[in-house]
Amino acid sequence: MAPQRPNLTAAYDPEHFRRLGHQLVDQLADHLARTTRREGPVLPWAPPATHVERFPADFPEEPTGDASALLARVIENSHHLHHPHYVGHQVSVPLPLAALCDLTSSLLNNGMAVYEMGPVSTAMEHNVLRWMAGVLGLPEGSGGVLTSGGSAGNLTALLAARQARAGFDAWNGGPTAGPPLTVLVPESTHYCVARSVRMMGWGAEGVTPIPVDAHYRLRPEALEETLAAAKRAGRRPIAVVASAGSTATGAFDPLEAVADFCAKHGLWFHVDGAHGASAALSPRYRHQVKGIERADSVVWDAHKMMMMPALITAVLFREGHRSFEAFAQEASYLFTGQDTRRWSDVALRTLECTKEMMALKLYTCLHTLGTKLFADAVTDTFDLSRRFAQRLQASSDFELAVPPDCNIVCFRHTPKGLPDSELDALQVRLRESLITRGDFYLVQTTLRGRVWLRTTVINPLTTDEDLDALLEALRRAV
Amino acid sequence: MAPQRPNLTAAYDPEHFRRLGHQLVDQLADHLARTTRREGPVLPWAPPATHVERFPADFPEEPTGDASALLARVIENSHHLHHPHYVGHQVSVPLPLAALCDLTSSLLNNGMAVYEMGPVSTAMEHNVLRWMAGVLGLPEGSGGVLTSGGSAGNLTALLAARQARAGFDAWNGGPTAGPPLTVLVPESTHYCVARSVRMMGWGAEGVTPIPVDAHYRLRPEALEETLAAAKRAGRRPIAVVASAGSTATGAFDPLEAVADFCAKHGLWFHVDGAHGASAALSPRYRHQVKGIERADSVVWDAHKMMMMPALITAVLFREGHRSFEAFAQEASYLFTGQDTRRWSDVALRTLECTKEMMALKLYTCLHTLGTKLFADAVTDTFDLSRRFAQRLQASSDFELAVPPDCNIVCFRHTPKGLPDSELDALQVRLRESLITRGDFYLVQTTLRGRVWLRTTVINPLTTDEDLDALLEALRRAV
Repeated sequence: MAPQRPNLTAAYDPEHFRRLGHQLVDQLADHLARTTRREGPVLPWAPPATHVERFPADFPEEPTGDASALLARVIENSHHLHHPHYVGHQVSVPLPLAALCDLTSSLLNNGMAVYEMGPVSTAMEHNVLRWMAGVLGLPEGSGGVLTSGGSAGNLTALLAARQARAGFDAWNGGPTAGPPLTVLVPESTHYCVARSVRMMGWGAEGVTPIPVDAHYRLRPEALEETLAAAKRAGRRPIAVVASAGSTATGAFDPLEAVADFCAKHGLWFHVDGAHGASAALSPRYRHQVKGIERADSVVWDAHKMMMMPALITAVLFREGHRSFEAFAQEASYLFTGQDTRRWSDVALRTLECTKEMMALKLYTCLHTLGTKLFADAVTDTFDLSRRFAQRLQASSDFELAVPPDCNIVCFRHTPKGLPDSELDALQVRLRESLITRGDFYLVQTTLRGRVWLRTTVINPLTTDEDLDALLEALRRAV
Repeated sequence: MAPQRPNLTAAYDPEHFRRLGHQLVDQLADHLARTTRREGPVLPWAPPATHVERFPADFPEEPTGDASALLARVIENSHHLHHPHYVGHQVSVPLPLAALCDLTSSLLNNGMAVYEMGPVSTAMEHNVLRWMAGVLGLPEGSGGVLTSGGSAGNLTALLAARQARAGFDAWNGGPTAGPPLTVLVPESTHYCVARSVRMMGWGAEGVTPIPVDAHYRLRPEALEETLAAAKRAGRRPIAVVASAGSTATGAFDPLEAVADFCAKHGLWFHVDGAHGASAALSPRYRHQVKGIERADSVVWDAHKMMMMPALITAVLFREGHRSFEAFAQEASYLFTGQDTRRWSDVALRTLECTKEMMALKLYTCLHTLGTKLFADAVTDTFDLSRRFAQRLQASSDFELAVPPDCNIVCFRHTPKGLPDSELDALQVRLRESLITRGDFYLVQTTLRGRVWLRTTVINPLTTDEDLDALLEALRRAV
């Protein structure tokens, strides 16, 4: 019988945890107070090499005392998303309550591959997904899983689509078991769809692009010809992927028209609603996703418009049993029973085996803060973005790329007297100037060969005044 | 200009966060104290339907006050991994400090797809991976990424292997661009490898099984014939996957022999070290992974033997640039520069786009608690498992499946007088009895058609006395 090592027992000491925990909560609360008051930079910019030197891997052998000094430096040097001048990527400004749920999840570490390893979080996942399916208007019998991000989610849905519509056993059959497959995808789709298709071995032609209109929305009248072209190229089309909120401009594809088309041709209808499925929460904007209730599968990230920290992605299937077809597998050490269709052993239906207690944060926030908060966040950020777009249109020195469908606004600064040929370089320079000074965080994108500034108004604390200040800052930075 | 809604501003109130945060830290510290003192059940067992009713999705519209009562119920009803009688799956008993890092990560929510969205965590990831590569003995020029779990990690490595060794452009070429591929995989490999292969469209024959010996280790003398058989079947073998710690029994394959074989035949050498790569940390046990330094790719989960909460998986490549080949993709809204090989925009090389600040917890724990803690945890749990196996072998009423290579021990209770035909059912019943009473948590597996009890001695607080008590409890439960 061997005695336990003091360093190991100390590392699990509840009183150490209590002391550091209280200290950290104060550090984070103070940080949150400063940041929401607009103090300090949004992004305290430094090049990668600087941070690589600041946080070296020179780990000691023995304990060095407490972590709070290091964590203070981490907090100071990280990107401060709670700052109302953060209007960049589609990464949520997390609810502090959700972060506390993640503390609970990480300490409990209930792994969820099988029910026994995460009984509460498995039940919560089940119920949260039912609630989400209800919000979207999916019928009785729908179901799904939570997974680690929209890319994993879209891959999961496409694997189910492949199994359901390939017309052969693509899971076991191998590359020569049937004709080469393809999915019809608008040009505006997130890169992860083309990536998923290539991961599945379908190659570049595994994606057949559907033309988009001037608003970057899928053109439904082009669907028939796109389908015919794919068939002429020797491909078997199995699905259409529509965007509810495309990434670059936030365009919502006409889901009802796509649903009709898929029904007519027996194609799987997948909606990448990673960003925009949340529109269904808002009485004012839910018309944007009309038709989503007819989808065979939907991906919806709660870590985008639902104020959850990364990662929590719902993959919802119109027919819940499709969820079992994405990954048709067994492992005797895990799944002890005979019934491999048990919903409660979620690893049967997810890319992950071990997984975090993902549902806990969303369940707890819905339970405690109420559903209206989530509806309001969508309505208010969409409203704010529309007002911002109107001001851009009304100003003589800014150009709006396209009227926003949601809370993503692309625009460029066009100061008088500057030739068109210099505008692309100007946007790049302006963005760099603002973000390296820490005044604002926004991003950029290329649309039809030209560079645009891109903002996602995703921080519920951002106001009209903040966006006015952004335009002023851009003017001054020229 | 619209005023902000009170519910939204309240939800981000730093003082609300501070108050609930302090309360939760105390709740979790008290829970940790009780659990590490062996108070209360390991798993407070209840069937799925009970928890589905206990945590219904009856979310109110308006806020309902504070979350601590709900979180108390979550803590009480979850699986209590810090209990020293938790000897079940390969899911770590997380260091409380790591959970506090996850709180920091979740509040800051630095998404990491591109450097700007997670500057500190990107630098930490880079440095932690260099440190891990050093522990394994990988050469200068190695590199990799952190990803959401071992399944995603093995898929990432196999995608890189496909791109490097298929002999054609499997990424863009599609199913008919080259011959059907296969990987040689010991029968004992984790299910996610066969699953990855099927996701990539290679079908059932995408895996060519390598026979294992009486210790469930890959038989190197069978490799030549396995390779020849795959070729005869019309497959192009591109890789061998070896296990450093197989899942069912924790067997370590002979890595040096596999490395020699791969070198001879130009095959990619992948090591699934999700569980056992951590052996490299222990001076006493690092010989188990001799040869891992010759691998083309290695998967190593820090959320198994490194006491990290899920998920944090390292995918390491001998040649760091291979990391860019798994996902060859661009997205203009994300990757603004010209150089698509920038290491610091990690989404170029991961399945995830947005990702958590994964490295923070491991970096902070190594920095604060020292490296020796991690070596000790491996050494001590491996030692303890060997002593447990010896006691099983010495007892007349227990049978050891195989002497353990690491901290996974499979055995069965064989009370006198019970016919062999009833032993399988007995193990199932004994396990069920112990776990539903909450006395212990252990699992079961099927080896060569027979049911065995399976323990992973992964809790550094588990002692010889706890394992003696487990055997006594099994005897009493007959």
